[in-house]
Amino acid sequence: MNTIINPDRKSWSEILKRPTFTTASLESVVKEVFDEVKENGDVALKRYTEKFDKVSIDNFTASKDELENAKKVVSDELKAAIELAKNNIEKFHASQKIEKKVITTANGVECWQESRDIEKVGIYIPGGSAPLFSTVLMLAVPAKLAGCKEIVLCTPPDKNGNINPAILYTANLVGVTKVFKVGGIQAIGALTFGTETIPQVYKIFGPGNQYVTAAKQVALSEGIAIDMPAGPSELLVLADESANAAFVASDLLSQAEHGADSQVICVSNSKNFLQEVEREINTQIEELPRKEIAKKAIENSKLIYLENNKDILDLINEYAPEHYILAVKNEDYYLNGVINAGSVFIGNYTPESAGDYASGTNHTLPTNGFAKAYSGVNLDAFVKKITFQKISEQGIKNIGNAIELMAEAEGLQAHKNAVTLRLKSLK
Amino acid sequence: MNTIINPDRKSWSEILKRPTFTTASLESVVKEVFDEVKENGDVALKRYTEKFDKVSIDNFTASKDELENAKKVVSDELKAAIELAKNNIEKFHASQKIEKKVITTANGVECWQESRDIEKVGIYIPGGSAPLFSTVLMLAVPAKLAGCKEIVLCTPPDKNGNINPAILYTANLVGVTKVFKVGGIQAIGALTFGTETIPQVYKIFGPGNQYVTAAKQVALSEGIAIDMPAGPSELLVLADESANAAFVASDLLSQAEHGADSQVICVSNSKNFLQEVEREINTQIEELPRKEIAKKAIENSKLIYLENNKDILDLINEYAPEHYILAVKNEDYYLNGVINAGSVFIGNYTPESAGDYASGTNHTLPTNGFAKAYSGVNLDAFVKKITFQKISEQGIKNIGNAIELMAEAEGLQAHKNAVTLRLKSLK
Repeated sequence: MNTIINPDRKSWSEILKRPTFTTASLESVVKEVFDEVKENGDVALKRYTEKFDKVSIDNFTASKDELENAKKVVSDELKAAIELAKNNIEKFHASQKIEKKVITTANGVECWQESRDIEKVGIYIPGGSAPLFSTVLMLAVPAKLAGCKEIVLCTPPDKNGNINPAILYTANLVGVTKVFKVGGIQAIGALTFGTETIPQVYKIFGPGNQYVTAAKQVALSEGIAIDMPAGPSELLVLADESANAAFVASDLLSQAEHGADSQVICVSNSKNFLQEVEREINTQIEELPRKEIAKKAIENSKLIYLENNKDILDLINEYAPEHYILAVKNEDYYLNGVINAGSVFIGNYTPESAGDYASGTNHTLPTNGFAKAYSGVNLDAFVKKITFQKISEQGIKNIGNAIELMAEAEGLQAHKNAVTLRLKSLK
Repeated sequence: MNTIINPDRKSWSEILKRPTFTTASLESVVKEVFDEVKENGDVALKRYTEKFDKVSIDNFTASKDELENAKKVVSDELKAAIELAKNNIEKFHASQKIEKKVITTANGVECWQESRDIEKVGIYIPGGSAPLFSTVLMLAVPAKLAGCKEIVLCTPPDKNGNINPAILYTANLVGVTKVFKVGGIQAIGALTFGTETIPQVYKIFGPGNQYVTAAKQVALSEGIAIDMPAGPSELLVLADESANAAFVASDLLSQAEHGADSQVICVSNSKNFLQEVEREINTQIEELPRKEIAKKAIENSKLIYLENNKDILDLINEYAPEHYILAVKNEDYYLNGVINAGSVFIGNYTPESAGDYASGTNHTLPTNGFAKAYSGVNLDAFVKKITFQKISEQGIKNIGNAIELMAEAEGLQAHKNAVTLRLKSLK
């Protein structure tokens, strides 16, 4: 690993650079598939599924039988774990509901906000080696709480045309409306335009490879909302000598096993501690089934020694980590000072995996520095907040003249007239 | 105007079609200007300002003298009106702050959300005939409340190199950090990449012509957040015989005067009422200074007669109006049933102009059907919500096993190990 001692501020942007990630070159592939899906619907989906997933699918909708069967296959132990996670995620996301608060901004002028569900949402769950049923929980639970009426899930079939049972089981448990066996660019295209089988949605959520990421960007330019722009996953740990080096190493490795382009950073005010973390990583990594992936990610990763609290805080905010573990004695200083981060994990017994699965917070978070401008997925992501205003006769008398003056100064006479007519009627 | 009687559902999507609006063809122009600004900074800004705004600017920063002078030029009457609007907007947006609520999702597992400001935001204010100082209020007031540290405003200079005094006065009043005399694509490029004079920001807000709209889309693909996708402004009025046809006509016209591509729709369960509205429009329109613009917009606009409450509600939600005026006796039915809208104006004395200027709600709202997935600008738009979790020894004992099981089932052994190590240490 790269150990960096007291880097000066000028070098920070170079040190904190993410592995490059661009999907612009994939745009033409995406557009080709999108055009096909738009024009030929299910026929195009079938063709691309044969081409990319090497399987011929006649009915994209997961059947009742398949859902029932998944219930039998998933172990009772795993079911109980999923239930526990679901409850915690529900509790936390339910607490994010806003109450209607009517504000009298001026006498006779009442304003308020109300949340309404995004009626149709699409959830993309990648296939491949890791069946991400946890992501089904993270996206469908808040969608259901928000009241979304149509919650559509797309995930690629395996070579036998099946979907992982844990994904099917979880989708059914949390109230996904329909599960479709379709993945990749063609799935995002189907959610963008709709086909005979798959409904068009208003917003698309979920992780994916570079093709899915590129497809979500094109969907965005077609007027479909997306959860957030994507990049490789990342973790920054801030730890001092009060932390446990073995725990810290295990957290860094849990991030590193995601992919060779994952980034992990450990910042400390103790050189000894950083050395201990490095030793622990070298030991623990050998036991991992995904050690080849983890080793590549660890090669690009950094141990950073900084003495000064203010420097440490500024560096972390400059990086804007997706996941941020805080295991230091003076945690209040860092909690109050954090400005840019996706999710924060506090203390020695709060591993990142807790938030990935079961603490209750969401694991769909802004990567790549996007935490400077974006929130992670929360209940807000599944609703719109509509504003309302109700003005009484007295109210328009109170603010009408100000409106007339401002409209006039902006040269918008009809805007003024809408008030003038009402004020005249009240004389 | 187009009067449509009892249209059947199949024809709705055709009837409710917006004037077409695409900026894809402008992408290459935008990219050329962006490349120039990225490479040559202020020099490029100067050149494009000469080319597009026909004025040579040596210093893009509005000076203290200019700000002082604006205070003298703006009338006391208008100052008082701006002050009233500012107070109402502050009151309403301040009410949107979220309190920190610590949720114990499981015994020993605490989760909460906290808002943090987006540190650097850019506000674009168009030049041209209407000096939109009201938009300065709508964007800078919540930015200031959110705690944004750098609030940068760009607006094009006139042919003498000046900015409208009402814009300067308002920007100074509400705490905009810096005002720059630069407009168009080059302004959005400067906010995206930063130049010697203009800082890079994390999110860009504000209206603009098709070039600015296209530039914001390209900024988005460069990793800068934007407020929302844009389209022509629009208003839908739902009114019955309890409403006042002259008022309704004045509201429709206030929307129509924005631009030839504005869309206005009036829905009613009374044919007589619709006829009256049409007569009123024909009379009132003649008095408007912007009547040529308004006439073009009115040509594309619709009066829709529908008998049935449920049909009316569904049609409105299908349209997803940016502005929605509700002037009917059974208003509760429609208030409870609204799902897709930007801002709702209730009753005979709540003209759209009230929300445009001074009721307290925001006037930056989703157009073009985007109200199906997007909120208007509110306090949320200037913050990120960061999640926090703190797990005690007891807490990890309570949820640790579930995490281990789920991580294992997803094939992520290092995720499991981060928990296993901690659980072992507690035995």
